Amino acid sequence: MPGRVLSIQSHVASGYGGVTAATFPLQVLGYDVDTVNTVQYTNHAGYGRFGGSKTKPEDLEQIFDMMKKNRLLVSTTRVLTGYIPDASSLRAVAKVIIDLRRGRNNDITYLLDPVMGDDDQMYVAEDVLPVYLGTLLPLADIITPNWFETELLTGLKISGVRSIQEALHKLHTVNGVPNIVISSIKVTSESLPTGADDYLLCLTSTLLSTNHDAATSASPATRGRKYSQALSIVHAICFPKIQGYFSGAGDLFSALVLGHFAPGSSRTALADATSLALSTTQAIIASTHKYCSALSEEECPLTDEELDAQDRERRVNRMRARELRIVSEMREICVPSQQLKLAEWETFWECF
Amino acid sequence: MPGRVLSIQSHVASGYGGVTAATFPLQVLGYDVDTVNTVQYTNHAGYGRFGGSKTKPEDLEQIFDMMKKNRLLVSTTRVLTGYIPDASSLRAVAKVIIDLRRGRNNDITYLLDPVMGDDDQMYVAEDVLPVYLGTLLPLADIITPNWFETELLTGLKISGVRSIQEALHKLHTVNGVPNIVISSIKVTSESLPTGADDYLLCLTSTLLSTNHDAATSASPATRGRKYSQALSIVHAICFPKIQGYFSGAGDLFSALVLGHFAPGSSRTALADATSLALSTTQAIIASTHKYCSALSEEECPLTDEELDAQDRERRVNRMRARELRIVSEMREICVPSQQLKLAEWETFWECF
Repeated sequence: MPGRVLSIQSHVASGYGGVTAATFPLQVLGYDVDTVNTVQYTNHAGYGRFGGSKTKPEDLEQIFDMMKKNRLLVSTTRVLTGYIPDASSLRAVAKVIIDLRRGRNNDITYLLDPVMGDDDQMYVAEDVLPVYLGTLLPLADIITPNWFETELLTGLKISGVRSIQEALHKLHTVNGVPNIVISSIKVTSESLPTGADDYLLCLTSTLLSTNHDAATSASPATRGRKYSQALSIVHAICFPKIQGYFSGAGDLFSALVLGHFAPGSSRTALADATSLALSTTQAIIASTHKYCSALSEEECPLTDEELDAQDRERRVNRMRARELRIVSEMREICVPSQQLKLAEWETFWECF
Repeated sequence: MPGRVLSIQSHVASGYGGVTAATFPLQVLGYDVDTVNTVQYTNHAGYGRFGGSKTKPEDLEQIFDMMKKNRLLVSTTRVLTGYIPDASSLRAVAKVIIDLRRGRNNDITYLLDPVMGDDDQMYVAEDVLPVYLGTLLPLADIITPNWFETELLTGLKISGVRSIQEALHKLHTVNGVPNIVISSIKVTSESLPTGADDYLLCLTSTLLSTNHDAATSASPATRGRKYSQALSIVHAICFPKIQGYFSGAGDLFSALVLGHFAPGSSRTALADATSLALSTTQAIIASTHKYCSALSEEECPLTDEELDAQDRERRVNRMRARELRIVSEMREICVPSQQLKLAEWETFWECF
């Protein structure tokens, strides 16, 4: 299955996020990875301070043009996009993907991670949203938004199964996305019947091909609608939340979903890829958490916004300690030691 | 042994050279790799055309300052420098290495690949040479110049054993470099007694510690001098040259030498590391050569300067086909299938 991935996201000199979280795992899985850096920063923004600069949109465009001219994309089989800081950069990225799709590469698999924010905070320019909605989503084979990004993309407040149904329906039918993975939905006993607090839900949804024509021409007015038949195959798993913020975990997860995805192989291709990606990601987060737990309070201070505000170094130290242990846990990339397997949620569309 | 490498070199979006040739192999060996890109180009310069831009020297400086401020270099154990396009960038790099050496990191191992050119052609600004000589070389634990770079650094014409002696003497004593690896010295039956045409010589030289004090204070006037005693331990191997130009092979080789080097372990530490690095590099070149040989003339046109001049695409196609197969041959990184073992050249300093 391995081939050549074009990966477009942020580069950090130190630590794991964007490019550095995605490239090594894909290479270990056997992919050649072409990498275009949308920024070159010293470290991820969670540290509270960073150096470096963005790649200018016109430079991005020039890079893509030359890659095309030198036919460096002729053997590309997969595309992965992550952090793209503004609408102009995003349009340059869209252009190269449209080119790829138009050319002889009809068999390209494009995973779009619509990196815009987390925990109700946006960390890209707001003008990216209409470009994602209007241009990028219709190009994507798979998208991997987090909870907050799902809300941004759909304009819906996600709380409970009914709102997830609406969000999936909208993304599948209005935006024409065939495969959706929403990782890390916070589960509370009120909002979802399947779990308790301190659990997260990971959910995949693959549009049923029989619904595809109807779906792509469906009306956007879906709110309040009842679902008489299943629109998609849904798989899900509840898994224990590991406490703490681990930057780059989403980038790692998305890269692994793309790396493991076997297009056209079966109706469970997305769920199978996601199971492997989730297993590896959880193993690496668990190892990182274990490593941090063994450090002193000075080396890895506990999360405390007030103390952080008094002493910026606390936050920097915590972030540095919590950099994902992707290299030291490389065996977890090939064969995760513990399998988290998504199960089919057969009654999903009948829930209400 | 693995720890944390700070790698400072060129980034290409596609193919293997600089960062992309060095990072993955070091990660496979278990190192965390922090990467600062001195340029972001689409592809290596051998294609004849490329897009992208240099990182400005002031941006490099700002990146290093923030890395220091965020203490991202506190666990750095090794430093690797490669392509650095101009003197200002080189001075910014020197500054961070001096800082690292001054701090609590006395145990840092620094491998300097003085990437300046090949085959009598310089591909960096000429003003880098005095900075390498005056500032960088005295900081380095290991240097890995090619034949041409050895000539540039020493001002000597390398032809035959006598000139290699002089070059090593100068680099060890005048420039204070304890470990020198010169890969890929062209061997002709006239110039060296050990081989025939179509062979290359790879040679390592480790300054004998007993000579170290004398060496560092030696006079630069070494030409014509007779060597009454061995200045260094020299190991060498002649190995078959694989025809063709494979860009990035030097970057891969240098990264592997650093990755395998066990400082202070034994008098053969440099030769042992070089044997492994050479074995892997040759295996990857051989695999790439085999891959190219199976392609059509259109997919991988033979080297022909005249035809290349008429049709620029020929050269582009050849370069693309000859990108090193580093990912697909990743098993050769851990355990090379064929061992090329450098042997001690006990009579080296007695040759004349």
